[in-house]
Amino acid sequence: MKLLNFYSEAGEKVLGAVEGDRVYNLTGTGFASVGGLLRGGDAALSKARELQEQLLKTPARSVPLADVKHAPLVEPDARVFCVGLNYADHAAENNLPPPSSPIFFSKLAAVVIPHKAGIPIPKSSQQVDYEAEFALVIGRRADCVSEADALACIAGYTIMNDVSARDFQFKDKQWFRGKNCNGFGPMGPWMVTADSVPDPLALDISLRLNGETLQHSNTRNLVFSPAALVSTLSQSLTLEPGDVISTGTPAGIGFHRKPQVFLKPGDRMEIEVEGIGILENFMLG
Amino acid sequence: MKLLNFYSEAGEKVLGAVEGDRVYNLTGTGFASVGGLLRGGDAALSKARELQEQLLKTPARSVPLADVKHAPLVEPDARVFCVGLNYADHAAENNLPPPSSPIFFSKLAAVVIPHKAGIPIPKSSQQVDYEAEFALVIGRRADCVSEADALACIAGYTIMNDVSARDFQFKDKQWFRGKNCNGFGPMGPWMVTADSVPDPLALDISLRLNGETLQHSNTRNLVFSPAALVSTLSQSLTLEPGDVISTGTPAGIGFHRKPQVFLKPGDRMEIEVEGIGILENFMLG
Repeated sequence: MKLLNFYSEAGEKVLGAVEGDRVYNLTGTGFASVGGLLRGGDAALSKARELQEQLLKTPARSVPLADVKHAPLVEPDARVFCVGLNYADHAAENNLPPPSSPIFFSKLAAVVIPHKAGIPIPKSSQQVDYEAEFALVIGRRADCVSEADALACIAGYTIMNDVSARDFQFKDKQWFRGKNCNGFGPMGPWMVTADSVPDPLALDISLRLNGETLQHSNTRNLVFSPAALVSTLSQSLTLEPGDVISTGTPAGIGFHRKPQVFLKPGDRMEIEVEGIGILENFMLG
Repeated sequence: MKLLNFYSEAGEKVLGAVEGDRVYNLTGTGFASVGGLLRGGDAALSKARELQEQLLKTPARSVPLADVKHAPLVEPDARVFCVGLNYADHAAENNLPPPSSPIFFSKLAAVVIPHKAGIPIPKSSQQVDYEAEFALVIGRRADCVSEADALACIAGYTIMNDVSARDFQFKDKQWFRGKNCNGFGPMGPWMVTADSVPDPLALDISLRLNGETLQHSNTRNLVFSPAALVSTLSQSLTLEPGDVISTGTPAGIGFHRKPQVFLKPGDRMEIEVEGIGILENFMLG
């Protein structure tokens, strides 16, 4: 099942399910968003599945996916964790060995923007860059879980663009400021539930900038798997339903290209992850 | 005025004001928390002042400060920004020059705990350390503000203990995981409104561990002032009422002492900032 948040005609943020090229409104579940549904636990997810089954019988009441205005995938109090250097080839392009344990940092929920939204370029940055990432969404509280138990805490998967101001990032050394400019967290277009992703460690991932492929890898090249990331972080911090862990980016970032590539007004990015979808965003002018 | 969140007898989180050794319930303002009040803007703050004036006439309806169970000072969706190496003597004990611009990182609102609460020691860390910090609370949206305009965006000041797992912090190099273990954000006991802090750059700050003073400095030694921090961060990220920036710690952390000092079950910390108060917390066993 593909779950998303979108704006109703009345401008309200509502929960929906995507089937083919149609979006079904799941307001009837009593939940107003993907994050709300996840906090409702397994019972809520079952309710969403049942309602979707029912709605599929009356497609006339659905709306075309192409017409939908997407809303941010996370709640304002959700946490978005990111992971550095989690593909060996990306570590290598940074002249670093793959890390021996995951390197976590964070994005603020407030910088998360939806599919098709524009990303502002901060006045004080000249080096805004892209990062294609495969991300997991927590569905069950994870507190000191083993790697074996971690998979059951993952509700589904999505796509993230870990947009980064390299000048801020490398000047500060701490990555927080460069990763948390307004609008630097494109995420979506939806969450695909885990049961619809038979092998999360065998998915092609690529990024196209204005149609040209600049990153291309496969999640089999991840240094730390989704389960390992959940387990490691949960040893010291309790993860909650609706939290997201973005698993890191493969080689090919703009900063390390020759010549370097930085994002400019009007640039269009598409991140495609096999079995998940395509996340599209553009740079504001 | 000193504003705090506390639990009512019914266990509800409510807004209060401290005057002497009494706490006055400000539920009558229509706001349920300090963060809620700050989001209400100047009008809300005026309302709180008026109600406090009125309540002071009937002290019998207040409760003794000593009996109050404190609640976390920030809302679940507030952001807590921290600053690294912002006292020259602390940079020096890390063998680093003072930074040329502020180094930001973040704490999650979920790790913020109130005055007198206990701090758990993660099973996998052997190096939990303290950091006494003076913190500012945002009262007005700050988007690309100049340093001159930044002061007007600060609603008040509080105290934070930037508890840190040094083993995680230095292994990861990114500080996020080591700074964001469960319970690693003691903050409070209250916010003192800016009008009650005539000179925020002339306040003694100290930390006592089991009664022994291990950190002692003055906010005049800050490398970047509260206004500079607000201005810098607001150039790329919009700050919102209720957000907190903790301004960094002076020299004297446990990691750099000879012999090293790490926190153990039962340890009691008091951080005192002149004109603000004393934040007390202890390590859980």
